[in-house]
Amino acid sequence: MKNLTIVKIGGNVVDDECALSDFIIAFSELECPKILVHGGGKIATQIAAKLGIETKMIEGRRVTDKKMIPIAVMVYAGWINKQIVAQLQANQCNAIGVSGADGHLIISSKRSKAPVDYGYVGDFEASDVNANMIQQLLNIKLTPVFSAITADANGHLLNTNADTIASNIAIALAKQYRVTLMYCFEHKGVLENIKDKNSVISSIDKISFMQLKADGIISDGMLPKIENALNAIHKGVCEVYIKNTEDILDKSKGTIIHNK
Amino acid sequence: MKNLTIVKIGGNVVDDECALSDFIIAFSELECPKILVHGGGKIATQIAAKLGIETKMIEGRRVTDKKMIPIAVMVYAGWINKQIVAQLQANQCNAIGVSGADGHLIISSKRSKAPVDYGYVGDFEASDVNANMIQQLLNIKLTPVFSAITADANGHLLNTNADTIASNIAIALAKQYRVTLMYCFEHKGVLENIKDKNSVISSIDKISFMQLKADGIISDGMLPKIENALNAIHKGVCEVYIKNTEDILDKSKGTIIHNK
Repeated sequence: MKNLTIVKIGGNVVDDECALSDFIIAFSELECPKILVHGGGKIATQIAAKLGIETKMIEGRRVTDKKMIPIAVMVYAGWINKQIVAQLQANQCNAIGVSGADGHLIISSKRSKAPVDYGYVGDFEASDVNANMIQQLLNIKLTPVFSAITADANGHLLNTNADTIASNIAIALAKQYRVTLMYCFEHKGVLENIKDKNSVISSIDKISFMQLKADGIISDGMLPKIENALNAIHKGVCEVYIKNTEDILDKSKGTIIHNK
Repeated sequence: MKNLTIVKIGGNVVDDECALSDFIIAFSELECPKILVHGGGKIATQIAAKLGIETKMIEGRRVTDKKMIPIAVMVYAGWINKQIVAQLQANQCNAIGVSGADGHLIISSKRSKAPVDYGYVGDFEASDVNANMIQQLLNIKLTPVFSAITADANGHLLNTNADTIASNIAIALAKQYRVTLMYCFEHKGVLENIKDKNSVISSIDKISFMQLKADGIISDGMLPKIENALNAIHKGVCEVYIKNTEDILDKSKGTIIHNK
């Protein structure tokens, strides 16, 4: 069984030109086959503001209304995606930028308006991923670079969570590959003490996660990330790392999520 | 030798929601393998204006300066490209949206600043097209949809003429396929009398073109289009049509460019 590495980077890297450039060099050195999934960053919000489009938030989450979806598609699938692809190409990584719409790779559904209407937001399961087509792209030595945009079966473009894209692709490809999934972010890993940047928890399994959650050590945004990771492990992904964007080439760094 | 159809649509279709929708239905019905190349339309200029970015023109041609290139990439490779792809997918056409940067498909060079500095504009030859990778995408039953964005070898994104992309891809693939190239636009074909929309010249060859040019019947924007077409024919492309976007399924309509 071949190895496959799936790396997800967030807005903090996308927004920082130097960090992105360093990441691209490191990612280019990763063994193939590999896949990159990138989040959005602040550019969409900034452009929307300049265009006089108000960014609506409900419980800390962005609402993608009719005016916001073109901005999200333009920025995520356009400017950010093509910049990453062009820079990867300049580093001899044969990248191809895709959204879920391209190659019928992901079919999502618009999220229900109840209880909260988040607008043009797409949800999907691992079974909605076209694993066969992704494998065919990998077979012709391409490195797919996913933006966080998908489409439904009727051709409506939808803003989609990048963590979910990464984990569902990982699960969908777990039958064909020995998949390593890396969630990259600004910290060195999952921290025991948020004030101590070096207090990285080296490994987490289902049982220790429940304890860490009960003790309030893991909370807020980190909870769905680890739940996503444990779900991926449960569904056949070999290893999931939560680590700093700078450390993707060093397997000894970051937090590894285990299955027990 | 397999047939391959390459269709280029311009801004007039891209800007008209109904015309684009009708075109997408017709294009989906075209026999595979096929490739679509689309121009930009007015949206980039409109968004630039809203963002307070002045559109500079020199001799009727847009200057793509440092502020304009992100807008061009966002709109052409982002919003327009992904909308077309998602709508083609909804019509059972397995489209994949690409720029020249994706899959190392086209390597362009930034146009020289002299005699006129058009800014971030890319030029390339048919020999800069990665015919092998396009063929591999076609072999896995994908329909590449090119936006008019390319990148140079150093990862700089460049605004690129869509007619040139269409003709250079056609030439690059002429050894592997029996290529038909269609330039689609708002008229029924090349017109003998611009005031009479039905005065379509049914066929043009190198000799008749020189006469039509000398007589002033063909002028302005149509000149480079026919020169491009004649060059493509000269370099191995089987047929080039200049026709209305509505007529892509009807080989009897429009102007056919011959080789003699």
